[in-house]
Amino acid sequence: MHVVVNAAISIDGKLSTRRREQVAISGERDFERVSELRANNDAILVGIGTVLADDPHLVVEGSYRKRRQDQGLIPTPHRIIIDSRARTPTDAEVLDDEAPTYIIVSESAPTSRQADLEVEGANVMIAGRDRVSMPAALSALADSGMSSIMVEGGGEIIFSLFEANLVDELSVYVGSMLIGGRDAPTLADGDGFIDDPTQLQLTSVKQIDDGVLLQYDVETTASTYDSID
Amino acid sequence: MHVVVNAAISIDGKLSTRRREQVAISGERDFERVSELRANNDAILVGIGTVLADDPHLVVEGSYRKRRQDQGLIPTPHRIIIDSRARTPTDAEVLDDEAPTYIIVSESAPTSRQADLEVEGANVMIAGRDRVSMPAALSALADSGMSSIMVEGGGEIIFSLFEANLVDELSVYVGSMLIGGRDAPTLADGDGFIDDPTQLQLTSVKQIDDGVLLQYDVETTASTYDSID
Ligand SMILES: NC(=O)c1ccc[n+]([C@@H]2O[C@H](COP(=O)([O-])OP(=O)(O)OC[C@H]3O[C@@H](n4cnc5c(N)ncnc54)[C@H](OP(=O)(O)O)[C@@H]3O)[C@@H](O)[C@H]2O)c1
Ligand SMILES: NC(=O)c1ccc[n+]([C@@H]2O[C@H](COP(=O)([O-])OP(=O)(O)OC[C@H]3O[C@@H](n4cnc5c(N)ncnc54)[C@H](OP(=O)(O)O)[C@@H]3O)[C@@H](O)[C@H]2O)c1
Repeated sequence: MHVVVNAAISIDGKLSTRRREQVAISGERDFERVSELRANNDAILVGIGTVLADDPHLVVEGSYRKRRQDQGLIPTPHRIIIDSRARTPTDAEVLDDEAPTYIIVSESAPTSRQADLEVEGANVMIAGRDRVSMPAALSALADSGMSSIMVEGGGEIIFSLFEANLVDELSVYVGSMLIGGRDAPTLADGDGFIDDPTQLQLTSVKQIDDGVLLQYDVETTASTYDSID
Repeated sequence: MHVVVNAAISIDGKLSTRRREQVAISGERDFERVSELRANNDAILVGIGTVLADDPHLVVEGSYRKRRQDQGLIPTPHRIIIDSRARTPTDAEVLDDEAPTYIIVSESAPTSRQADLEVEGANVMIAGRDRVSMPAALSALADSGMSSIMVEGGGEIIFSLFEANLVDELSVYVGSMLIGGRDAPTLADGDGFIDDPTQLQLTSVKQIDDGVLLQYDVETTASTYDSID
């Protein structure tokens, strides 16, 4: 499974304000780049924190749909929500019928909530006991035929993917603004690394709109995911 | 007063790990740049959090001293610690006699601690009631004859300076690593902005060592400092 993480941050690493309200960090040209990246992957993945905060739609539009259909693909990629307790609201944008949606829950998710989500058309999959296990989740998605995933956040999910050594590439748009806040979400939250930060290799630096796009390959040591699959 | 903030962060905006232990984020060439920047300012400022975590020395060495002396300056810039309760340890590196050191405390600082620090040669100044007021601190430093300050961190002090609209320039070295951690210090902590992030203007993008140096001018609206001085 090829995993690319993409996000927009302020220069101080924040994904949004401490109120977790969305901030317009990037501009028109970067939106185009993100659409292109979405269209080139089999699936788009976010955490339940992002669904609850932003209610994103996670689809591509217009010419991207046509191109994908010409390639024999579904118009817009699969949507994946990592959601241990099946908290995705039944009226969430990701539950419309524009693309298949997979909700990965843990064994602790109430079965009634799982059933509610299935009624809305979601494919509910279980991976992990109390919390979703990222290696098991990616393994299940690979078994469903997906081979590339774009991760759009948030900081908790992104850290878990790095911690499990599951990320291949990282694209970060650094907007020219400072948000601040010791409680604001950052590109990578979770418990954080203590002794061994993940080492990255800078592959590209581009000025886009008023900010900078930084792209990295991840210097993987040993993939937890490969050893499980 | 001209204020430039300089720091090294991981791509996720962290200054160090959640244990607040120093991480080698930048390399040789960036150290040279930081020395040059130190040498070009009248003073180097940090918060007490940075003193307690890193015990930095905050001096320039060798050729920079000579150049400064040739210019009729003291060999290495003034050192400034923002320290409301006068917690600076009496054996801190910044209290050696290589440069004058100013410790800015609040009215709440125990007078015995202030006296201890003065015995060690520090110039103790009071600015603010319970906590150091940054506008009052910079005003007092201007009255002492300083006209340019380089701020080296940490995230609490940096946010307070941005909040008070006191920063002119920001230089950030983005190291090619991911540290993670919702409790790790970031480039700008404090309470954070809610509705109005500080807008920056990107002035330079340079690859240095394995990372990227991003430089910004701050788009100031109205300077709190100017209105006080
Ligand atoms: N600027 C951008 O590009 C961008 C992109 C996306 C999001 N955002 C912002 O990011 C914020 C949301 O980020 P977030 O970090 O709070 O949420 P998140 O990463 O989207 O979701 C985190 C949640 O996922 C669930 N989860 C399940 N298994 C997990 C695992 N193994 N590891 C980690 N989490 C797991 C946890 O809740 P349960 O265990 O209860 O399921 C956890 O609280 C919002 O403010 C949003 O606006 C910004
Ligand atoms: N990578 C880098 O370039 C770099 C540079 C510097 C530091 N660091 C790291 O940053 C961490 C320390 O950062 P930090 O944010 O904890 O500490 P900090 O910003 O250096 O100091 C914060 C402290 O200053 C005092 N203070 C007084 N008046 C203040 C005001 N008006 N606003 C804000 N603070 C005020 C407060 O304590 P009192 O009120 O008790 O005085 C506060 O806790 C360490 O882990 C260090 O390794 C990294």
